[in-house]
Amino acid sequence: TRPLTVIAGPCQLESADHAQMIAGRMAEACAEAGAGYVFKASFDKANRTSVSGRRGPGLDEGLKLLEGVRKAIGCPVLTDVHLPDQCAAAAQAVDVLQIPAFLCRQTDLLVAAGETGAVVNVKKGQFLAPWDMPNVVSKIESTGNRRILLTERGTSFGYNTLVTDMRALPQMAATGYPVVMDATHSVQQPGGLGGASGGQREFAPVMARAAVALGVAAVFIETHEDPDSAPSDGPNMIPLDQMPALIASLMRFDALAKAEPL
Amino acid sequence: TRPLTVIAGPCQLESADHAQMIAGRMAEACAEAGAGYVFKASFDKANRTSVSGRRGPGLDEGLKLLEGVRKAIGCPVLTDVHLPDQCAAAAQAVDVLQIPAFLCRQTDLLVAAGETGAVVNVKKGQFLAPWDMPNVVSKIESTGNRRILLTERGTSFGYNTLVTDMRALPQMAATGYPVVMDATHSVQQPGGLGGASGGQREFAPVMARAAVALGVAAVFIETHEDPDSAPSDGPNMIPLDQMPALIASLMRFDALAKAEPL
Amino acid sequence: TRPLTVIAGPCQLESADHAQMIAGRMAEACAEAGAGYVFKASFDKANRTSVSGRRGPGLDEGLKLLEGVRKAIGCPVLTDVHLPDQCAAAAQAVDVLQIPAFLCRQTDLLVAAGETGAVVNVKKGQFLAPWDMPNVVSKIESTGNRRILLTERGTSFGYNTLVTDMRALPQMAATGYPVVMDATHSVQQPGGLGGASGGQREFAPVMARAAVALGVAAVFIETHEDPDSAPSDGPNMIPLDQMPALIASLMRFDALAKAEPL
Amino acid sequence: TRPLTVIAGPCQLESADHAQMIAGRMAEACAEAGAGYVFKASFDKANRTSVSGRRGPGLDEGLKLLEGVRKAIGCPVLTDVHLPDQCAAAAQAVDVLQIPAFLCRQTDLLVAAGETGAVVNVKKGQFLAPWDMPNVVSKIESTGNRRILLTERGTSFGYNTLVTDMRALPQMAATGYPVVMDATHSVQQPGGLGGASGGQREFAPVMARAAVALGVAAVFIETHEDPDSAPSDGPNMIPLDQMPALIASLMRFDALAKAEPL
Repeated sequence: TRPLTVIAGPCQLESADHAQMIAGRMAEACAEAGAGYVFKASFDKANRTSVSGRRGPGLDEGLKLLEGVRKAIGCPVLTDVHLPDQCAAAAQAVDVLQIPAFLCRQTDLLVAAGETGAVVNVKKGQFLAPWDMPNVVSKIESTGNRRILLTERGTSFGYNTLVTDMRALPQMAATGYPVVMDATHSVQQPGGLGGASGGQREFAPVMARAAVALGVAAVFIETHEDPDSAPSDGPNMIPLDQMPALIASLMRFDALAKAEPL
Repeated sequence: TRPLTVIAGPCQLESADHAQMIAGRMAEACAEAGAGYVFKASFDKANRTSVSGRRGPGLDEGLKLLEGVRKAIGCPVLTDVHLPDQCAAAAQAVDVLQIPAFLCRQTDLLVAAGETGAVVNVKKGQFLAPWDMPNVVSKIESTGNRRILLTERGTSFGYNTLVTDMRALPQMAATGYPVVMDATHSVQQPGGLGGASGGQREFAPVMARAAVALGVAAVFIETHEDPDSAPSDGPNMIPLDQMPALIASLMRFDALAKAEPL
Repeated sequence: TRPLTVIAGPCQLESADHAQMIAGRMAEACAEAGAGYVFKASFDKANRTSVSGRRGPGLDEGLKLLEGVRKAIGCPVLTDVHLPDQCAAAAQAVDVLQIPAFLCRQTDLLVAAGETGAVVNVKKGQFLAPWDMPNVVSKIESTGNRRILLTERGTSFGYNTLVTDMRALPQMAATGYPVVMDATHSVQQPGGLGGASGGQREFAPVMARAAVALGVAAVFIETHEDPDSAPSDGPNMIPLDQMPALIASLMRFDALAKAEPL
Repeated sequence: TRPLTVIAGPCQLESADHAQMIAGRMAEACAEAGAGYVFKASFDKANRTSVSGRRGPGLDEGLKLLEGVRKAIGCPVLTDVHLPDQCAAAAQAVDVLQIPAFLCRQTDLLVAAGETGAVVNVKKGQFLAPWDMPNVVSKIESTGNRRILLTERGTSFGYNTLVTDMRALPQMAATGYPVVMDATHSVQQPGGLGGASGGQREFAPVMARAAVALGVAAVFIETHEDPDSAPSDGPNMIPLDQMPALIASLMRFDALAKAEPL
């Protein structure tokens, strides 16, 4: 078992400088703590709560920015795809294609992502049980691609609220694929601000630590130098300057967890 | 306020004869009971639980079948769309474009559907509160299209289970748009059969009647002459030969409900 | 099948005059509409959100008030019991002993209530499935008492929220015992006001009508001449002067529902 | 901050020898691992799913057994109380009075327990939000007793299922009182076996470890030398011979968590 990987970045792409600044600082912090690192950012926020929410630079410009991060920083890069015909182009620019939670049962998208041969990270839908994920996995495996990650990001729990069932982590790990804990979106309050989603930033380290103690392969954490000014998901992002200490702490739990598998 | 409309048909398209047979019988039953009628069938089941689930005839062939129903039976036709670039073609062949529940926050799909000028029926996501729907409505209204229907089809309730909150019906009606009760999918048990969804056909008339008593504009009911042999959603479909009596009964509740608005 | 019974009254007992005033007006409204009537009030609110919430007159004084209603108005009377040793005394003064939802699995309370021979109305716990109720019923039946009512009052749905699953009504009716819809507490928002529970009075008629359309035996509705001044459950009570029209409307749905059993 | 305390024992009392055997082995294992230890067993299971479920020796005999453990093993003892008039007697025999989750809003029981001056451990109801617990705490504090523990044991999540929201641990800790993670009942499947509750024993260590990593004061774990023969809660108990290794492992996470408060 390998040490924890940290998947982190700003929710959406803002500019080349901004992306590389965050990737650079995160790569450094992860290297120092002994963690793996993957940069994450979205070229398009395709399901904003509101039609007027900012969506990002779009596919063409976005992929250039992501490729720029990969070249400048030398780290693997992850982005999310929303339509089958985005997959091939995205797989040229990035290392990991992510399937958004709402789309995790769209067969054509899963198959198109699988066919690229890139790593595919599927977020478990807020409406799915952990034991439903093998059906999702099979759709990707039908392409011959077995480079799959499975991400927990919370489950619908009444209205405007998500809850994370920690049992989902070992249940998804039973597929044999690495499991990722999304500490950012699991503390989202969907639609909780009326025209936007709210979030509970203060609990992201709680979710991350609990999951790392259970031995997950990776954590997913969105970060920004000024979350309250970020174009999306600000309420649940961790400020960039708090990330090095958080990662260092998580690595101490990771070492213990990997030494004592459940 | 108009009498109840019934949106009904087989879950997925099987053949021209099959579609027209069901549309013909339903149109007759609805006319006899004084109900409006819209034929519903899918050209593609794009989010089957399993990769091996049957998906239907596809866009081109499917739209031909749907247009065939419209011509042969003379009733309006509804079908669901899954990608933005399907909307224009679909709007040539059918009267109502339906946005699947999992996709109800995909901005581009809502906008593409709205731009056709066709009626757009949005299914409320299993992960949304009723008061989140005005944000969805605004995405369609941003195209200038105000021909909108809002459908209740159940909300995630623990694992593999949906629950219908009856308060959602008047809450969505407060938008001013007609509200549809999907009596078929609200009794679905998502993923409940492992490789497929289960369902509780026996409760579909329960959900339909409760909603009609509250004065909804329409009910959505999938039907098949032999549900246990249907290629999808069989467990929650109503047998075709039971539909005339069900509709006649619903119309008696509809008359009372429309005479006594809540 | 008999016409609908209405179980109604103020949440907690205030005075003899107040109790008899409400019972008198409700008995009259029910008689006029052709509904059965049972007066309901509590002598003790034993599980208020806050320790400083008003609790009522207590057992001795409360039972006198309830007996007073029975004598003065001539209607059957229901009250809730919280401890096994309250049951015998309460059964002298009232006709129906009600088991609160939180206590619906307390074996000794169910048995003590059953042993009185009085009718026992059990509220389904917010934490129970409808199919768990036969176990509750068996506890009462173990005393030889088969005069049992089963009440739906909502199920936990995330935090501070209840949802009513309409399928629970026919599922509980399958026990063979009469089913009651509690339209007041199913729209409660438990703890929703911090130091007290909130409620959505505007949806009580929605829940009542939907349930009556499904053919329930009774509805339970708390009422007060001035709900906003009531010592408990004000936010979800129906003003007394709106009750006659509500009952008259429910009876029209009841007549149709009883004529067309599901 | 003190090292972790382990509250453990068989679900219900069986005999003096059995209680002391388990208490003795657990005390030894905890001492070896550096954990605090409190023996737990119930004299009465007052809310069994079924009327025929075994309930235990009852108050008088049970308190003698519990006092026997305290004398023989020298460890503090916890038991649950169900009625206000059990509290005074129980507080003579044991150190901690536990309020069952279903009863956590019964004012008289909380007050009677508080008035004994014993430590009171309240299990958060399956129907409560973490932020509802300060109202519960106030009821006990109204007696002047501030020796309070708050226990997480899962929240209703659909039917026959509980989910544990890890955010509840820091949220309850914000009251200033020690927080306990009940790793046994949080993996219960209430009513899941029809006439009895099911459980997922394999996930109890998962819940315990996640909570300990977050720095809880104590874990609550039921154990038995032969869980499948235990009179209650067998499906979610940990076999006694697995407890020493589990506790030793938890203590390593506890040391790290207490050194790095969130």
